[in-house]
Amino acid sequence: MRYGIIGTGAIGGYYGGKLAHASKDVHFLLHRDYDYVAQNGLQINSCAGSFHLDAPNIYNTSRQMPQCDVVLVCLKSVNNHYLKELLPPILHDNTLVILIQNGIGLESDIQQCFPQLSLAAGLAFICSAKTEPGVVNHQSYGSINIGNYSCHDHTLVNGVINDFKEAGIEANLMDYNEARWKKAVWNMPFNGLTVALNTRTDLLLKNPATLELVRDMMIEVIEGAHACGVQNIETTFADKMIENTIKMPSYSPSMKLDFDFHRPMEIHYIYTRPIEEAAKSGYIMKKLKMLEAELLYIESKEY
Amino acid sequence: MRYGIIGTGAIGGYYGGKLAHASKDVHFLLHRDYDYVAQNGLQINSCAGSFHLDAPNIYNTSRQMPQCDVVLVCLKSVNNHYLKELLPPILHDNTLVILIQNGIGLESDIQQCFPQLSLAAGLAFICSAKTEPGVVNHQSYGSINIGNYSCHDHTLVNGVINDFKEAGIEANLMDYNEARWKKAVWNMPFNGLTVALNTRTDLLLKNPATLELVRDMMIEVIEGAHACGVQNIETTFADKMIENTIKMPSYSPSMKLDFDFHRPMEIHYIYTRPIEEAAKSGYIMKKLKMLEAELLYIESKEY
Repeated sequence: MRYGIIGTGAIGGYYGGKLAHASKDVHFLLHRDYDYVAQNGLQINSCAGSFHLDAPNIYNTSRQMPQCDVVLVCLKSVNNHYLKELLPPILHDNTLVILIQNGIGLESDIQQCFPQLSLAAGLAFICSAKTEPGVVNHQSYGSINIGNYSCHDHTLVNGVINDFKEAGIEANLMDYNEARWKKAVWNMPFNGLTVALNTRTDLLLKNPATLELVRDMMIEVIEGAHACGVQNIETTFADKMIENTIKMPSYSPSMKLDFDFHRPMEIHYIYTRPIEEAAKSGYIMKKLKMLEAELLYIESKEY
Repeated sequence: MRYGIIGTGAIGGYYGGKLAHASKDVHFLLHRDYDYVAQNGLQINSCAGSFHLDAPNIYNTSRQMPQCDVVLVCLKSVNNHYLKELLPPILHDNTLVILIQNGIGLESDIQQCFPQLSLAAGLAFICSAKTEPGVVNHQSYGSINIGNYSCHDHTLVNGVINDFKEAGIEANLMDYNEARWKKAVWNMPFNGLTVALNTRTDLLLKNPATLELVRDMMIEVIEGAHACGVQNIETTFADKMIENTIKMPSYSPSMKLDFDFHRPMEIHYIYTRPIEEAAKSGYIMKKLKMLEAELLYIESKEY
């Protein structure tokens, strides 16, 4: 199976790198780092074992890439409008495109542009960062949940999961909506609050007022999911997420890093869309809507 | 009528100063500024006409003050625990104490300490600041609404209003609960959001997301007031407050100034108490509770 990696950063560099390191046929699209990686290769510093790819298959335009059986989209979702141009050259009739991105509504938007496309969601549980050109630092975790959105070829989806496992990545198949909404339970409180209060996950959980707020927001996401027909997330899942996060090291979620490095924040797919979806089904996520407003205000001052 | 002013800052300095300037019998309690004012008097720079009090009656302890007929409490509410000591020396059997402070629950707490005391609320609509020792800068507005909490002597309350008017202060008698809750409609969104988003009133109202948030929060206060039995605040009052604030110059509410100058914020009476009062009556102010949590977090980092 041939893999295409759209966006070779903290996520695409890590998962694509692991697949390539396990001798899978992987083709990387790069943008700013292309020249550096062409000269120096790709370095993955990983808590699970570091490695270097001396001569990965890299491209600075998708028009020169081969058609792929599986495409991992690892862009920030604020750049998804580029997919209209980036995807067609590397698709064949049965290509599976997996969006390894945060938020709600991503697959539905891409499906509108590509009605025949086989789509899946990839939910990455990983702490990694691209700290300099061609260098990915993977600090902890690394599993990925795959949720099938519109791929009728289940053998293909299972094949991807197998390849991930062979490459040393913990990968699991999960119900699409359950996967996306469960990730949102963590993402929606922590991404925005660490920006709004200029802090990190551990500090939010040490303060009783913000601990309660985080939990209230998680319950809002779970109730929003229920309103949207996603029933298999129990409210106890909030407590489990909080316990897990307390065990994590002090952490800046991706939106906090985006904010700190003056990059656009993924407000649309992490906040606006799930809030809209829940509202369409009659549930108002009041605190998350307030956090969205604060983030929109902060972003308007920032840019 | 003899007036005692507890706290000679932006509020006490202005209203007490105006009364003294109109030849009322006014006695000021000062703390840090005592020596300066003893030497230099009190300067009121005011858009309504500046003046200087050469030798006001000033004290650095209430034990040396005479008994007063009316006491204006103009402390920050975070210092109200001092009133247990400060008030008794200046009270006689019929003294009226007016709390010119922001928030909900202030009179009820003081009444618990002084069950026989005649209490009223003073709601000041004023932009003023004490910019240096002995100098009050009054920029705009200046009216005060008086709400009678527990004073049976209505002649006394009306006498105060008359004295205020004679001193050039627009003063009106208003239903106690209506006065406190109407002020909260403005205070609760603007005080906290300007701190949480490090901004000013005009910028909040220029951004569509935060304009909507401000309005939602005002509606929460109004619905909270309704739940507490205060029916005579219409939801259109929110729009009126927003229109008025749009007409105001760019403004930092008192909590923002407290935060900027590293003074404790009045979170308890401006947020915690009204949120608790509404909750006791079955109404949850969700967004304001979230803002309270953010402020508690910010304060815990600050001190």
